[in-house]
Amino acid sequence: MFLDRQELHASVHSPVMESMNFLNEVAQDFPDALSFAAGRPYEGFFDIDDVHRHLDRFCEHLRTRTGGDEAQVRRTLLQYGRTKGIIHDLVARNLRVDEGIVADPESIVVTVGCQEALFLTLRALRRDERDAVLAVRPCYVGLSGAAELVDMPVLPVRNSADGIDLEDLERVVRRARADGLRPRACYVVPDFANPSGISMGRETRERLLRLAEEHDFLILEDNPYGLFHGTDKPRPPAIKAMAGAERVVYLGSFAKTGIPGARIGYVVADQPVRDTAGSAGPAPEGETLADQVARLKSMLTVNTSPIAQAVIGGKLLEFDGDLRAANAREARVYRDNLRLVLDGLEERFPAGSTPSVSWNRPTGGFFVVLTLPFTVDDELLELSARKHKVLWTPLHHFYDDGRARPQIRLAFAHLTPDQISTGLDRLAAFVREQSASHT
Amino acid sequence: MFLDRQELHASVHSPVMESMNFLNEVAQDFPDALSFAAGRPYEGFFDIDDVHRHLDRFCEHLRTRTGGDEAQVRRTLLQYGRTKGIIHDLVARNLRVDEGIVADPESIVVTVGCQEALFLTLRALRRDERDAVLAVRPCYVGLSGAAELVDMPVLPVRNSADGIDLEDLERVVRRARADGLRPRACYVVPDFANPSGISMGRETRERLLRLAEEHDFLILEDNPYGLFHGTDKPRPPAIKAMAGAERVVYLGSFAKTGIPGARIGYVVADQPVRDTAGSAGPAPEGETLADQVARLKSMLTVNTSPIAQAVIGGKLLEFDGDLRAANAREARVYRDNLRLVLDGLEERFPAGSTPSVSWNRPTGGFFVVLTLPFTVDDELLELSARKHKVLWTPLHHFYDDGRARPQIRLAFAHLTPDQISTGLDRLAAFVREQSASHT
Repeated sequence: MFLDRQELHASVHSPVMESMNFLNEVAQDFPDALSFAAGRPYEGFFDIDDVHRHLDRFCEHLRTRTGGDEAQVRRTLLQYGRTKGIIHDLVARNLRVDEGIVADPESIVVTVGCQEALFLTLRALRRDERDAVLAVRPCYVGLSGAAELVDMPVLPVRNSADGIDLEDLERVVRRARADGLRPRACYVVPDFANPSGISMGRETRERLLRLAEEHDFLILEDNPYGLFHGTDKPRPPAIKAMAGAERVVYLGSFAKTGIPGARIGYVVADQPVRDTAGSAGPAPEGETLADQVARLKSMLTVNTSPIAQAVIGGKLLEFDGDLRAANAREARVYRDNLRLVLDGLEERFPAGSTPSVSWNRPTGGFFVVLTLPFTVDDELLELSARKHKVLWTPLHHFYDDGRARPQIRLAFAHLTPDQISTGLDRLAAFVREQSASHT
Repeated sequence: MFLDRQELHASVHSPVMESMNFLNEVAQDFPDALSFAAGRPYEGFFDIDDVHRHLDRFCEHLRTRTGGDEAQVRRTLLQYGRTKGIIHDLVARNLRVDEGIVADPESIVVTVGCQEALFLTLRALRRDERDAVLAVRPCYVGLSGAAELVDMPVLPVRNSADGIDLEDLERVVRRARADGLRPRACYVVPDFANPSGISMGRETRERLLRLAEEHDFLILEDNPYGLFHGTDKPRPPAIKAMAGAERVVYLGSFAKTGIPGARIGYVVADQPVRDTAGSAGPAPEGETLADQVARLKSMLTVNTSPIAQAVIGGKLLEFDGDLRAANAREARVYRDNLRLVLDGLEERFPAGSTPSVSWNRPTGGFFVVLTLPFTVDDELLELSARKHKVLWTPLHHFYDDGRARPQIRLAFAHLTPDQISTGLDRLAAFVREQSASHT
């Protein structure tokens, strides 16, 4: 017997999945290529002892909290546990310390990475085929993928130098409503977005909040890179920390600031939920969107591994919630790498010279976007990997139309200075060769 | 602002979710009540040192496998990882040792508990509104909940003393097809089912396999309790270990045999997947259902925490894949508890006496079902909890019609002999009081 792929859910063969598959395969087929493709944190400070120490620290914390009830400590770490998680109070403290966000611990659901938080939020908001989610294009594939799993259309909003074109956002919302759709939320990565690297200014954030209020949608604020600010200029506040933030569902990740291998993320969903008149079920008293998300989670993953939560909990305790302090070394690496990439590009593609290559200048994060003098498709990526031994991500993978564009994303967080230098040399050789063949 | 619960996905206020909520609330409101309600493993042997030892053991294993490449060991445990998991080979060995199941490690996807495996499998199989899943009623709520998350109807099949009424199964399949539905799979727990405690005999398993072949559906075999066989009589083989098992998707959990707090489960999905003529995408070569499930997982939880996997991996290594041996102490507790419950019921409700109470006699697992001389609803459970300080689960929570029934489920795995004895005394007092008031 065999199963017909066309008889399975469309997401298994969607363009997003094909993109992911293709990019994975290229990376596997050319393991010796230097990779600007992987958006992964730096591994130079990884230490397995950290896992043991964090676990012990969290158990110590549980011991204090339970008055030395060892059976309770063991049960909390090893038994099935609370659906919303066991480090929600520590996450709330971290949010206050690092982002100035005041969140009720009960409105936090600890999830299996930010991806589960994203899925659960969309699942809760997608009631029927009229519900849609707005997202700036180019868009993080995790959002597109989660939306596909719940058959929710993503309505693309134009990007701008400030991270979102708010006029276009209004147009898209109006058109969607005219078409009978309900834009339930707008997904944004306001700080050092993936893939663009762009950050939103304070005024843009304020205007976005006002639009959300006016047009009755939520803002899904995803903030994996916020702590990795690369300049001395102050960063605007998180949208969730601003006045009027009750429309913001905040999505967090410890994959970059904690330990990726713990797979711990969370969602702050403090929006009150009520039953309107005529509803079937009883009105839940004082319930929030977090409670609804937790119900869905109980049927998706039951609860997030308390052992994995304890690893992150221990790290949060060790630094008293201050992950900016905990990541001082990493932040320096990312800042230096960003500088090395920008300077290295300047050196290899001086202004006014040919081939004419330009790039944006993010003030932090993991990504830089290059604009090349030729469009880039997957075949060119394979050529680059095979012949020049350098990998990067064609930007068309972050669009839903699959159209080849002259842009690529460079991810640099995981690299050493030598790798960046060698990688940029190879990239320059590739670009020069291609430019010559296109003229 | 507030969100209208009726405008969220129906699963947040479905009967299954309301059931779960109610049962959780009763347990929270009466923390001093003895609980026959929680289907949890015994905690008496829990030891936090196990976590550290298993982690170390798994790292040692990685060191050997990588020839001492410490950077690779750290990367495997702490970085983002393989979507299908890093202990798939150890799971395959465990399946061979404990269940006689031969599985290609590449056909295994390690998941966040069995619940994620269940969700992903249903998500893959539910293409559109015609797709449905068959399940014996009363049915484990995790199946109903996962089906709700993907808007997939569950078609109930009658139970029997042998765990499934195969004549009814055929009737339900024929009727579904006549109604334009596609029954894609039949969910079963062939060993010590939840909630019924019933096991299927060998012949029933064989006939079920033949029906799956004849009517072109998959079998979803969920086996969390198989190792906890309570008698000396041999257990029939897992369906996945029988001839013709290519139609079986096998769902596994380490929550009862490993450590619940690791939240590690898996799915064996070795069914080949092909593109039929006229399909849009390219035909994936040699792909299986596991590859499709992994694609969906990459958009749901990215990958299962390698730290959590390592904890289970270390335990599997310590016992060379033999979890029966690893759980010798636990199996004895469960067997003794089952005996204590059955004998204790005999003692308190002797045959021919009133009130007339009967129960089934499972040969293992975590559950026994009692039939009382009166129907049982949630109000009675609250009365039992408040006045008699004993909790149990009304069986109607495992049906989709919500109709009160005269049956309750007793879960006994997590209890001590004293707790069982006291709990049965309280239960008997409750039953006597209620019988008196009903006559």
